[in-house]
Amino acid sequence: MFTFLMPTKVIAGENAVRNNSADLILGKRAMIVTGRSSAKKSGALDDVIAVLKDKNIPYTIYDDVENNPTIENCAAGGAAARKFSADFLIGIGGGSPLDAAKAIAVYAANEPIEGSNFELFDIYNVDRYPRKPLPMAAVPTTAGTGSEVTPYSILTLHKLKTKKSFGTPDVFYKTAFIDGRYTLDLPLQVARNTAVDAMCHLIEGFTNKKSSPASDFIALEGLRIIAKNIDSLIDGRRTVESCTELLWASSLGGMVISQTGTTIVHSMGYQLTYYKDIPHGRANGLLLPEYLKRANSVLPEKINAVLKALEMDSIDELCKILAGILPYTESISEAEIADWAETSIRAKNVSTCPFSVTLEDEIDIYRSALL
Amino acid sequence: MFTFLMPTKVIAGENAVRNNSADLILGKRAMIVTGRSSAKKSGALDDVIAVLKDKNIPYTIYDDVENNPTIENCAAGGAAARKFSADFLIGIGGGSPLDAAKAIAVYAANEPIEGSNFELFDIYNVDRYPRKPLPMAAVPTTAGTGSEVTPYSILTLHKLKTKKSFGTPDVFYKTAFIDGRYTLDLPLQVARNTAVDAMCHLIEGFTNKKSSPASDFIALEGLRIIAKNIDSLIDGRRTVESCTELLWASSLGGMVISQTGTTIVHSMGYQLTYYKDIPHGRANGLLLPEYLKRANSVLPEKINAVLKALEMDSIDELCKILAGILPYTESISEAEIADWAETSIRAKNVSTCPFSVTLEDEIDIYRSALL
Repeated sequence: MFTFLMPTKVIAGENAVRNNSADLILGKRAMIVTGRSSAKKSGALDDVIAVLKDKNIPYTIYDDVENNPTIENCAAGGAAARKFSADFLIGIGGGSPLDAAKAIAVYAANEPIEGSNFELFDIYNVDRYPRKPLPMAAVPTTAGTGSEVTPYSILTLHKLKTKKSFGTPDVFYKTAFIDGRYTLDLPLQVARNTAVDAMCHLIEGFTNKKSSPASDFIALEGLRIIAKNIDSLIDGRRTVESCTELLWASSLGGMVISQTGTTIVHSMGYQLTYYKDIPHGRANGLLLPEYLKRANSVLPEKINAVLKALEMDSIDELCKILAGILPYTESISEAEIADWAETSIRAKNVSTCPFSVTLEDEIDIYRSALL
Repeated sequence: MFTFLMPTKVIAGENAVRNNSADLILGKRAMIVTGRSSAKKSGALDDVIAVLKDKNIPYTIYDDVENNPTIENCAAGGAAARKFSADFLIGIGGGSPLDAAKAIAVYAANEPIEGSNFELFDIYNVDRYPRKPLPMAAVPTTAGTGSEVTPYSILTLHKLKTKKSFGTPDVFYKTAFIDGRYTLDLPLQVARNTAVDAMCHLIEGFTNKKSSPASDFIALEGLRIIAKNIDSLIDGRRTVESCTELLWASSLGGMVISQTGTTIVHSMGYQLTYYKDIPHGRANGLLLPEYLKRANSVLPEKINAVLKALEMDSIDELCKILAGILPYTESISEAEIADWAETSIRAKNVSTCPFSVTLEDEIDIYRSALL
C-alpha cells in the first residue's frame, strides 16, 4: 500500500512570478513572509511586489523571520497577519522563511491564547486547529529545502533544545514559483549547502522505510538532475538554467520527503544547527557519508541506484565530492556528542531509517563524522 | 517555463478503499456514479458501499452512465444528485463513469437551464460555472483512462458527431483508490485495450509539444512499468500485483497528460469510437504505429527513449506486439476516412502534435492504419 499526495502547483522558469499573477494572488490582502535580506537581494521580492501593485492588492511585509525560526517568532508573524487582516501569505526565501510562513499561516488563522483551546505549542496538534491555515504561495530563493512542496514546517524549540517539525496537508503551498534567477547570485557556499540538503532529501527518501514506487522514481530523477549540474556547484559556474534545474531537483526532493519523511541524517543534523549554528544543508551533508555506508549494508541495490543516478562509481567518490564542497572546521567534543545523541535518538524519523539505530549507533555516527 | 499540477491523493494497494475510509468520504451524502456492470463485477461497488454503511453515510447509486457518455446523460446524473442532495460523488468504473462523474459534479452544482446563464453546452465554458463542482473520489476498474488523476472529461457530442473534452482543475478527483483486485478479472481484451490507452497517454504526452521536464520522467516511468507487466497482457496471466502496477502506470499516464494533453492519436481515435464503436483504447492503439513513425522523423531521440523504457529494439517490435494484442476486423471505407478527417483535423490537440498535421496527413494516417 502506498500513497501519493503533492497538491502544490509548481510553475518553473524565468519570470514565473511576473508571468503568472493569477497563481500568486490567492486572496484580497497579502502578507509577504521573508527574512532580512535574501528575498531582497535575489530580486524575488521586487517581482512579487510588482505583481501585487499591478493588481492593486494591498500588502504588508513581515521580514522578521529568523534563521531557524522559533514558534514564538512565527506567532509574532501570525499576529502581524491578523493585524493587517491578510487573507493569504506569500513566503519568499530559503527554508527558514518558507517553513515559517506555514506556521504563520496557522497562527494567523488561530490566535494562540494561553489557557484556551489553542495555545502556542498546539501548532504540533495539527488535527485540532480551530480554523484552516491561510492559503500561501512560495517563492524559494535557495535550491535545497523543498519546503515549497512539502506539508512540513521545521521550527526551533528552545524548550526541547532542538528543531521539531509539524506537518499537515493544510500547509501545502497552493503554488510555488521556481526561477533560477533568484538563486544565481547566492554565495557559492550557500548554493552548495542547500544542494546537499536536496541531495539528502532525495537519498533519505529513496532509502526510507516509507519509500514506495510513487517516491522512488521521483528521487532518482532528482539525483540525475543534481548529477547533471554538480559541476556548477564545484566550480561555481552557474547559469539561470542550471539554477532552475537545481531548484526543480530540490522540489523533487520535497515531493519525495512529502511521501516518505527523512531519516536520522536530518534529526541528527538538527543538533549541529541548534548547538553549533552549522547551516542545515551542511549539517546533513557532514552526516551523509556515515549514513550511506550503513544504508549500503542493508540496501546495497538502492545505494547502487543512487550512485548510478549520480553518475558515480562508489560511495567513496560521493564522499570525496561532499568533503570538497562542504568545509568542516568546527571542533566538537565527546561530551557534546553524547548530549546530542540523547536528544536526536528520540526523533520520530529514527523509526523510518532503513537500518536499526540505537543511542550507541548515533554516538558512533557523530564520532565518525565529526571527530 | 513549465507547470506541474496534480492535486489528487492517490492511494494504491490491496483494500485501499476499505482501509482508507476518511479519504473516501468527502461529505455527508454520497452519490455513486457508475455504469451498468463493471463496478459490481469488480467488487469495487461492494467495497465502497461497505465503507459508506459502516460510517452511516446516506448514499444513492446512479448507474445509468452510458459507454462514451453524452452531456445529456451526465445532466441526468446531475439532476439525480440534486434530487438526493448529494454533496459528494464517488466515481467507480472505467473511463466512461470516471469522466461522467466529473460532468455530473458540474451539473449537480449547476442546474443547466435553457436561456439561463448556465445551459447544457456551457459545461465547456469552464470559467463560467456559477458554482464549484461537487468534490469526488475515484475508484478505477480499468487500467487505462488515467481519468482519476486528470482535470479532463471526454464526452460524446452528437451535435458535433464526435467526442470532445472539457478540462478544469476543479474536476480533479480529491482522492483515487487503485487496487488491482478490481481489474484482475477484466476480460483480457479489455485489459489489453485499456493498457494500450495508458501507453498512448504516456507516449503522446512524452512526445507532445507541451512535454516538459516535469512530465517526461513520469512518462518514462509509466512505460517501464508497462514493459515490466506486458507479458501479463500477452499471455493473460495476471496477478493482483501486476494489475495494481498497471493501474499505477495508467495513473502516471494521467499525470502526464494532465500536464501535456494528448495528440492526434486521441482526436483521430474518437472518430473510430463514435462511428464504429471501437473501444477507445483499441482505437488509439490502431493509430499509434503511424504516429510513432511520424514522431520518429522529428523526435528520434525521444522515440528511442520510449523504446528503451519499453525494453524494445524498434518501432516494428512495438507495432508487432500491438498488432498481436489488438484485433482489427472492422471494414472501413475511403469515404468514411475522408469524413472523419474533416472532423478530427479541427481538434485542438492537432496543434500540440510534434509534427505538423494537415487534413491530407490525417487521411494518410487513417488509410495506412485502417485500409
